[in-house]
Amino acid sequence: MSLTQISAAKAFGGWHKQFTHPSSSNHCDMRFAIYLPPQAEKQNVPVLYWLSGLTCTDENFMQKAGALRIAAELGLAIVAPDTSPRGDGVADDADGAYDFGLGAGFYINATQPPFSQHYHMYNYVVNELPELIEQHFPVTSQRAISGHSMGGHGALSIAFKNLSRYTSVSAFSPICHPIDCPWGQKAFNGYLGENQQDWLEYDSVELMKVAESSVPMLVDQGSDDNFLNQQLKPETLVEAAKMKNFPLTLRMQQGYDHSYFFISSFIEDHLRFHAKYL
Amino acid sequence: MSLTQISAAKAFGGWHKQFTHPSSSNHCDMRFAIYLPPQAEKQNVPVLYWLSGLTCTDENFMQKAGALRIAAELGLAIVAPDTSPRGDGVADDADGAYDFGLGAGFYINATQPPFSQHYHMYNYVVNELPELIEQHFPVTSQRAISGHSMGGHGALSIAFKNLSRYTSVSAFSPICHPIDCPWGQKAFNGYLGENQQDWLEYDSVELMKVAESSVPMLVDQGSDDNFLNQQLKPETLVEAAKMKNFPLTLRMQQGYDHSYFFISSFIEDHLRFHAKYL
Repeated sequence: MSLTQISAAKAFGGWHKQFTHPSSSNHCDMRFAIYLPPQAEKQNVPVLYWLSGLTCTDENFMQKAGALRIAAELGLAIVAPDTSPRGDGVADDADGAYDFGLGAGFYINATQPPFSQHYHMYNYVVNELPELIEQHFPVTSQRAISGHSMGGHGALSIAFKNLSRYTSVSAFSPICHPIDCPWGQKAFNGYLGENQQDWLEYDSVELMKVAESSVPMLVDQGSDDNFLNQQLKPETLVEAAKMKNFPLTLRMQQGYDHSYFFISSFIEDHLRFHAKYL
Repeated sequence: MSLTQISAAKAFGGWHKQFTHPSSSNHCDMRFAIYLPPQAEKQNVPVLYWLSGLTCTDENFMQKAGALRIAAELGLAIVAPDTSPRGDGVADDADGAYDFGLGAGFYINATQPPFSQHYHMYNYVVNELPELIEQHFPVTSQRAISGHSMGGHGALSIAFKNLSRYTSVSAFSPICHPIDCPWGQKAFNGYLGENQQDWLEYDSVELMKVAESSVPMLVDQGSDDNFLNQQLKPETLVEAAKMKNFPLTLRMQQGYDHSYFFISSFIEDHLRFHAKYL
């Protein structure tokens, strides 16, 4: 599969680059960003996959999180995919809402038309993108996964569905229990249809309940996050982890909100957490 | 003068906030951002003023530079003004160009109508804004100044016109000699008129040539910056500093471009540089 480089900028001795490529999962061109730390010039490095939240592209995390400094120190590549398929002919929310359709792929494989034609972000993130990355860049097959909000849901649910593919998972303000919150219910209903049995396979709490093992998990949540009680519900994750005796560290960060000011304040801890296991 | 708070987010134990206020210099509402480090809850802290480049607002630096982490460690407030007056009735470039008018105030006091009505960014940054900051926030009257590109020109020229007001100055990829480059000539012609004598008082190289003293200066420039040779001309600054025996450290950073990936890679050095003198 061919990659088209659309930008390159040196950062902390390494390189931030953006590429587009035709996606066999999503049947459209997809854009992603990769940060290659200076160590990648001499050896293969492990990869952290970062999944962004609603409305984001590959750019938000790379530009705002302050993560590249630490990735350069630790010798860690970071890959940030877009948050949905895009382009002419890709179905969007009928009203152009921010929480469904473009910019809101929810990291699942849609089964309902018209979304089932392009919205296969789960397959894209789990299979197609890592294959592409491991083919074209100096990386090992060691992977960690992290994300924010919708991307926190993506990271946790993908990790629990693929425990052998990721050595650790972390999240900022994840949508922990999408089948029980307005964002998740709207998305799962639209992408997967009315049968709520089908929703269970993308719900981190439900997946954890039936999992036989786990990977190390770190979650940070701001106490002053406007979405905390109605959408994010971290207590459901804590309960499930406790029930299963799985290794979850959830830190309630006093006074922090849902923004990249919050993420940037604690991203160093997350990268060092993942590096321990890579 | 009254301030209206429009956002607040906790970051690295301190607070990032945005305010608007009626500006007596620019005769319109102005927006600025301030980062108050955790130390500001117990004592007054010194302030770094950051001047952004063409097309930016108060947001680019605060979100992309990765500076807040270091400011929190050093106990330094950061203030980022907008790059021009804005709003209904504020004159813009006739063709809406990115390098003149809105987003391109060049930190000077315009004398040519229609720009002379609102474009007094020099007075705003040197006098009005610090007065406001020192009145409303827990800061000392110790000030440093820095900026990028057009804002690097602003920081250097303002420092040399006000040597007693700033303890140190730094810049990333500054427009060093605006009277001798296309961006500067277009701006100075439009804001100050055809008499090139009037341009001299805002040109860092010319100001340095006639200055009787200096302050510590640190400048970083990317070697792969697309604007290096035609617009930025750091060699003119080096020559002037050498001629006057002024303390300039100019670092040519191999492979870096004009972006915030470059700024974020070296902002820590700049903040530590300023902190030495504050």
